[in-house]
Amino acid sequence: MSSTRDIDALIEMMAKLPGLGPRSARRAVLHLIRKRALLLSPLADLMQEVAATARECVNCGNIGTSDICDICASEKRTNGELCVVEDVADLWAMERAGGFKGRYHVLGGTLSALDAVGPEDLRIPRLIDRVTSEGITEVILALNATVDGQTTAHYIADQLETRVRLTSLAQGVPIGGELDYLDDGTISAALKARKDI
Amino acid sequence: MSSTRDIDALIEMMAKLPGLGPRSARRAVLHLIRKRALLLSPLADLMQEVAATARECVNCGNIGTSDICDICASEKRTNGELCVVEDVADLWAMERAGGFKGRYHVLGGTLSALDAVGPEDLRIPRLIDRVTSEGITEVILALNATVDGQTTAHYIADQLETRVRLTSLAQGVPIGGELDYLDDGTISAALKARKDI
Repeated sequence: MSSTRDIDALIEMMAKLPGLGPRSARRAVLHLIRKRALLLSPLADLMQEVAATARECVNCGNIGTSDICDICASEKRTNGELCVVEDVADLWAMERAGGFKGRYHVLGGTLSALDAVGPEDLRIPRLIDRVTSEGITEVILALNATVDGQTTAHYIADQLETRVRLTSLAQGVPIGGELDYLDDGTISAALKARKDI
Repeated sequence: MSSTRDIDALIEMMAKLPGLGPRSARRAVLHLIRKRALLLSPLADLMQEVAATARECVNCGNIGTSDICDICASEKRTNGELCVVEDVADLWAMERAGGFKGRYHVLGGTLSALDAVGPEDLRIPRLIDRVTSEGITEVILALNATVDGQTTAHYIADQLETRVRLTSLAQGVPIGGELDYLDDGTISAALKARKDI
């Protein structure tokens, strides 16, 4: 055998991570083994630490190290705005962009007739509770511009319609985007939503 | 903060692995955290195990779990053939292909005037020792078809010339390869080395 059982098992496990395949897993594991004192041990320790401490916020679904995440716990973020996202990755992307000073609500997916995902499978009941209990005045539906994402946005809008201001992210030309490379849908959305300069 | 320090540190560390960037590292870490009991803990344990046990074979440079790797320790692989490769990944690729029943010698790189890598920085002196001490009759130079790889092959060939049979891997059209997609060098090499059918 060229490599022993544990090394093979590690490669196999790494190969199942999103974005990695067998070849890149082998490269990553070789790299880690070569720098095992500097890299592999600390990485394993950190993973163990995260495995022990990471949990979902019971309020919004964000991932953090306590039952209530830092954003939900922060007094500074109670400005009455609630941003609804599909996934924790979307929440992180919004935070990296900065500029949003309210709180989040992570649905954990989208409604999908095909995959039999209904409102009770997502955090939609909890969202409706929060709108009342946290004194929310504006709900920003920052869902992906996919069919399922937009279906979900419509469903939530129906549920909340009369209670709060409902908004969605603006659609248009991305910063740095070239018209020639954009799809027709984006161009016509940007044209419809054109602004005076 | 959207994510706490340990999670950020884990993403940063994963992002430095070959084949991963910041975005794929975030996706991988989120995936791991979601399945932390099933995936993250076992992965951390396995990494710790590998960090503790993995080592380089003192004889050939392969990575295994003992000072002498399984291939060097196996009596079955003493057929007098020695395959010289640049890297452990190349050795693993040869083993996956199967068919080679001799031993390996991992150089750990190639000679490079630009990066000031000389014969003493690679395992070349050890290779010359092994050829005598292990009764090697054929040395297969399975180095990459790059300039540095071929320079290294020539250097090793010079050092060993009179003592053993020296061979290199055949060059030609890859199995399943289409001529239209191959570079000119490969096509002319395959033409020069054409065989009767």
